[in-house]
Amino acid sequence: MTYQPFTDADLRFLKGLVAGDRISTGQSNLEIHSHDESFHKSYFADVVIWPETTEEVSAVVAYANKQKIPVTPWGVGTSLEGNPLPMFKGIVLDFDRMEKILAIRAEDFHVDVQAGVKYQDMNKTLSRHGLFFAPDPGANATIGGMIGNNASGVRTVKYGGTRDNVAKLTVVLANGEVIHPGNWAQKSSSGYDLVHLIVGSEGTLGIVTEATLKLAGIPERFSAAVATFPTVEQATQTVYDIMGSGLGPAALELLDISTVKVINEEADAGLKEAATLFMEFTGTSEVALKEDVRLAEMICEDNESNSFESGVGREARNHLWENRHKAYEYIKRNNPGLDFMILDTAVPLSGYSEMVAYAVTTIEKYGIRGYAFGHAGDGNLHLVIAGDFSDTAFCKKRDEANFEIVSHAIAMGGTATGEHGVGIGKRKFMALEHGESLNLMKQIKRMMDPNGILNPGKMFE
Amino acid sequence: MTYQPFTDADLRFLKGLVAGDRISTGQSNLEIHSHDESFHKSYFADVVIWPETTEEVSAVVAYANKQKIPVTPWGVGTSLEGNPLPMFKGIVLDFDRMEKILAIRAEDFHVDVQAGVKYQDMNKTLSRHGLFFAPDPGANATIGGMIGNNASGVRTVKYGGTRDNVAKLTVVLANGEVIHPGNWAQKSSSGYDLVHLIVGSEGTLGIVTEATLKLAGIPERFSAAVATFPTVEQATQTVYDIMGSGLGPAALELLDISTVKVINEEADAGLKEAATLFMEFTGTSEVALKEDVRLAEMICEDNESNSFESGVGREARNHLWENRHKAYEYIKRNNPGLDFMILDTAVPLSGYSEMVAYAVTTIEKYGIRGYAFGHAGDGNLHLVIAGDFSDTAFCKKRDEANFEIVSHAIAMGGTATGEHGVGIGKRKFMALEHGESLNLMKQIKRMMDPNGILNPGKMFE
Repeated sequence: MTYQPFTDADLRFLKGLVAGDRISTGQSNLEIHSHDESFHKSYFADVVIWPETTEEVSAVVAYANKQKIPVTPWGVGTSLEGNPLPMFKGIVLDFDRMEKILAIRAEDFHVDVQAGVKYQDMNKTLSRHGLFFAPDPGANATIGGMIGNNASGVRTVKYGGTRDNVAKLTVVLANGEVIHPGNWAQKSSSGYDLVHLIVGSEGTLGIVTEATLKLAGIPERFSAAVATFPTVEQATQTVYDIMGSGLGPAALELLDISTVKVINEEADAGLKEAATLFMEFTGTSEVALKEDVRLAEMICEDNESNSFESGVGREARNHLWENRHKAYEYIKRNNPGLDFMILDTAVPLSGYSEMVAYAVTTIEKYGIRGYAFGHAGDGNLHLVIAGDFSDTAFCKKRDEANFEIVSHAIAMGGTATGEHGVGIGKRKFMALEHGESLNLMKQIKRMMDPNGILNPGKMFE
Repeated sequence: MTYQPFTDADLRFLKGLVAGDRISTGQSNLEIHSHDESFHKSYFADVVIWPETTEEVSAVVAYANKQKIPVTPWGVGTSLEGNPLPMFKGIVLDFDRMEKILAIRAEDFHVDVQAGVKYQDMNKTLSRHGLFFAPDPGANATIGGMIGNNASGVRTVKYGGTRDNVAKLTVVLANGEVIHPGNWAQKSSSGYDLVHLIVGSEGTLGIVTEATLKLAGIPERFSAAVATFPTVEQATQTVYDIMGSGLGPAALELLDISTVKVINEEADAGLKEAATLFMEFTGTSEVALKEDVRLAEMICEDNESNSFESGVGREARNHLWENRHKAYEYIKRNNPGLDFMILDTAVPLSGYSEMVAYAVTTIEKYGIRGYAFGHAGDGNLHLVIAGDFSDTAFCKKRDEANFEIVSHAIAMGGTATGEHGVGIGKRKFMALEHGESLNLMKQIKRMMDPNGILNPGKMFE
């Protein structure tokens, strides 16, 4: 694809579509929108626009399509794979001004939101209704970003990811047309599933401006537990045994000893320094909950756990999850001057133990410092690689290790990305993972965005 | 679309692709494949082929595409909306010979099957591993048919429908190419979600030949319960209250008094004749299960239930679900000489009570005999309309009532079909339900099947 250079005439036209304080070509604004939380290099757009309505998005996109100008949607920049970076310049659409909760329809466990609503802020509001949106990416991402990436997190093991929890969307297509796929029923066999096609498409097929999300009731009772093990293999075997037991944990997280040590150093968490599982169980009754935790403890003991602490209170539990969510941040802080790459593979549950061992062995082979943790109950492994990314020799080792680990996950029947999306860094694995299906994906892309203006450079090489 | 007449040369070529006993132009075979369980009129194909491999399906479809001959996949004919009828003649692909369970990967809660495997037969085999495929359409449908229609049933309220429980597919595209979308990980953010696009597309985008299904563990403990109410409104209000309570029933079914009476007459079931809820709860412990049932009973009492029977044993429970599954069959048997149409709408949970009342009032207005039941926990209503379909005056009333009821469901934010699919009968509602999204669906269809050979006449008018 070739794109037209962005001209003064383009800027003048766009200024006619949105108020003057919501369009900027200022260097500081372009800089803010040039990088996310990933290690990918910066890309500068020509202009940043802050739309306030679907109609404005539609008008901007329709113009961009006519003029062949790239359009890249932007949430809040917490993505980890370069997903919202304007690789081919053009327009960044920042959804900061579309942050309204439109309706809380508690009676249907639904909330209608604009795409710029932030996940954690929304859940604070929803908590007053006893409800929450369960996919939990850790960061205070926007709902639009979560939909783009099919984000998930610690509670996905029980509640599913974003894709499983979206009922209906408002989407601006490449030509500016607006569609509203989905409905408010619990289930449907009517027509093609456009909602699931759009979720996870990273803004490459259309730009989501509004969504109806499916909510869950905040459990009345929960119990968090922390178990430690002599080896990471015993911890991962425990994950498998718990998932097969019918217990249905609300969270089941693995942290290797390196990650636990960093959390202790950075947050004075007082965790036992060993391979660790963070767990959470929920229940309608105290009795049932206790039984679940007792069963979990027995499974941990069968795998020779060193310790099992349960029944932590709400505050300690929130602290636990805060530490887990901040693990990546703590690792960064604990390694001043280094750069970081975060791997994100997912494999079949039965292969999780092998996958973790393979990943750790691989970086050891290359002599790379790494931290392993992840949403173990989903078979999702994160491995943070730390090093000096200006050192080309190191980068070569890093890229070889990354390639081996991700390829291994795919060979096991898994996926190149469990939750961070394809973005820039995972494009090279798409052919390996999807085979002939990749052609069909590309055909869909070409049909829905013939000028290639929507988030170009992402998803496909 | 116009299709080429099926010629002797076509037959000769196809006979070169499959063994002689697996291809037939015999009238009795064409007749068997001319009608499903719906009221739609019969359509006769030119030829029936029983493939044994994906490669054979691919070869037949590639030829049909070149020659512009329609191809309609056929499971076992239990569909309720004309979904597998060869409306434009051509080839019917009957999957009866592709009925192998390829692998039970219990360690990942997965089974790999060919598309012709029958749901109930498969679950009998899986039960020896303590596993089951949860979407339960009642009939012994094929997995291919369930995938085509995104079938669901009594346990969808807890476990989701077919779409939620498919991990990976083998699909023959219109040009004969074979793709394998999906993977074996628990979750993925890699590429476009082709699995969800194919599931529910009724064979109009590709023909599914194999699938990896997600399984659930058979609950160790369950408790079924039956509650009766003075009015259907009190029963539907109870549905809403139970779903909002966090109880998470494994089944929650509504039967109106007419349906209960028929079950008593046909199966000597001894049910109390009133608006009724069938429920099922599962749990990891006896104590927890008892608490759940007690809470359900309290909710029923709050809605002035007449009776609440719980703790039925395995045999009585199986009998209960058999009666529910056979309700439609019993209604048919109870009305000899009449014809039947089964409505299948789904609405937001908060509107279920209103939807049931609207449907019943509407058929009363037209003086039509009807039976209301359905997967209430999903907001899914079935309404069986009985009458003489050779009476054009009756058919006019039937169609008007149907139109009003389905349109009402759509206006409430619901869907024209909760689980039976669009097939023939729901095509006329697609524009109303999907609006501008329908154009995109049609574009996808045209792109993936430019010659329109895949199950033509379905999904779109």
